[in-house]
Amino acid sequence: MSSYRVVCIGLGPIGIKAAELAAGKSCLEIVGAVDIAPDKVGRGLDKIVDGGPANVTVHDDIATCLRETKPDVAIHCTSSFLATVDGQLLQTVEAGVNVISSTEELLYPRLYHTEIADRIDAAAASSGVTVLGTGINPGFLMDALPGFATAVCYDVDKITCRRYVDASNRRGPFQKKIGAGMDEASFRELADAGKLGHIGLPQSIAMLGEACGFELDEIQQHTDPILANGEHKTDYVHITAGQVAGIHNTGFGKQDGQIRVEMDLRMYIGAENPIDEIVIEGNPDLTLQIPGGTHGDFATAAMLVNGIPRVVRGPAGLKTMLELPIPTLLR
Amino acid sequence: MSSYRVVCIGLGPIGIKAAELAAGKSCLEIVGAVDIAPDKVGRGLDKIVDGGPANVTVHDDIATCLRETKPDVAIHCTSSFLATVDGQLLQTVEAGVNVISSTEELLYPRLYHTEIADRIDAAAASSGVTVLGTGINPGFLMDALPGFATAVCYDVDKITCRRYVDASNRRGPFQKKIGAGMDEASFRELADAGKLGHIGLPQSIAMLGEACGFELDEIQQHTDPILANGEHKTDYVHITAGQVAGIHNTGFGKQDGQIRVEMDLRMYIGAENPIDEIVIEGNPDLTLQIPGGTHGDFATAAMLVNGIPRVVRGPAGLKTMLELPIPTLLR
Repeated sequence: MSSYRVVCIGLGPIGIKAAELAAGKSCLEIVGAVDIAPDKVGRGLDKIVDGGPANVTVHDDIATCLRETKPDVAIHCTSSFLATVDGQLLQTVEAGVNVISSTEELLYPRLYHTEIADRIDAAAASSGVTVLGTGINPGFLMDALPGFATAVCYDVDKITCRRYVDASNRRGPFQKKIGAGMDEASFRELADAGKLGHIGLPQSIAMLGEACGFELDEIQQHTDPILANGEHKTDYVHITAGQVAGIHNTGFGKQDGQIRVEMDLRMYIGAENPIDEIVIEGNPDLTLQIPGGTHGDFATAAMLVNGIPRVVRGPAGLKTMLELPIPTLLR
Repeated sequence: MSSYRVVCIGLGPIGIKAAELAAGKSCLEIVGAVDIAPDKVGRGLDKIVDGGPANVTVHDDIATCLRETKPDVAIHCTSSFLATVDGQLLQTVEAGVNVISSTEELLYPRLYHTEIADRIDAAAASSGVTVLGTGINPGFLMDALPGFATAVCYDVDKITCRRYVDASNRRGPFQKKIGAGMDEASFRELADAGKLGHIGLPQSIAMLGEACGFELDEIQQHTDPILANGEHKTDYVHITAGQVAGIHNTGFGKQDGQIRVEMDLRMYIGAENPIDEIVIEGNPDLTLQIPGGTHGDFATAAMLVNGIPRVVRGPAGLKTMLELPIPTLLR
């Protein structure tokens, strides 16, 4: 087994979890870290990341850090939006470093950002490195995994993915992100402004559509609040009946007016039957379930770290989860 | 979408199903077929395969057929055993033709046949073609799919795959293969001689062990009969209480004396709760279920046909399901 030199770009909650996981893998060596938060820059990584190396100091500049550390791969966790991270990705790629990123829009970047995707793809191809956006959702549950499941079918008429998450035991920022504890009007105001809710559903729909061979001509998503019908208390928030308990994201992809891909994502405090479910209507029908569901934060960190060998050894360019071999557990 | 020229090598039950499926795909063209059965050689494929082209005549010689038809890929379904098919695979590869095969031992050929694997790999590399063994089991349910599931985990201590199949609605040869209707003594005699039971369990164990990063030092499998506790009648067999209803294949892979990969495969007439299930004990635990299970014959044909683009575009050499991008539905 080869050993890979890793730089962690972005030390928010997911970036820290990924770094903690990477620090424990015998085939990975964390050689650098980048973040712009003043309370992180200049500190030893052991102060921020459980098990992180003390001799790695957090940089505030990507290019300098990469030049000094010469890593094989960057674990990139700074923002959900391509237009925010494209400069970071280009700097990394131009330094000859492979990228595995939690940026949700990078899962299927050509959906809304062809130009940025072309630029990153060209730079990656010319540097001979691979760029991949992944995670648990988007990246696995509502796109790559159901895509893989279609391989056992003769035909698929429609595919539906459901993810019901009990947010009670998730981190505070996550509970805030889903609007827990807000009143309905404030929730809708923020949701309409695009400041609330899950990022990546249209990208999952588009990628799964490609996996099924659909030519989707319409992709839509909606965000609604789920209101609490009783009292709930978590470490971070206290909700009374009628307040927002969380979020209901729905989405679909249509081809010629017919829904072919459908998504139903509910993340709220007090969800009673958490589950991940894929339902294929086709020949044959097929239902795949993960009872209890999958923990989002941990699983995204796992996807980022376990995916490293696929990205380091992958073909040069900007790739999707449909273009690389399946990631599996990295020891 | 590219269009691929296909030759079907082997027109047994699975080969015919795969050919029927391929015949219906707009991006595939069946240009040749090979079988040695006297009642098939020389006949038009439309007489053997539903929707098969009438202008394709069944050949009895692989090399001649490939030379005349110049296909991109061969769907190969002739035998479960590498030592039986290695000549067929070499002929195909040396003709510059990619191979996707249902040969169970080809799933993970290096487990028992390093020399044959090396020969095929070298020939494929030198011809610039890809060779892959796949199917539903082995090929998906007890190896590739659980392997993919480990990507969301921090760590895996043990992984268990269960497949409980109700054989009532499966084809006659399948019911015979699992010993349905035999008495227990005859079953055990045939099982001991290796003439009964599922092929590929050790290969699945080895591949899943690799996916989890285990270094398995012992792989074992066992075959036992499942006895009917009542009367069952199918289109092919009539079973009374105490007779064999089907087969129970178990297997495990150990590392340092500890079971790390465990398989539990039950295929019998009258199974009451058919299911495919993967249980990961690790961090976190994860259970993945396909209630009702997956139909073996159809799903293997689907894997063979849906996997064609991955094989045609794949890197040259003898590859496993862990080395190629995930197959998805082919239209």
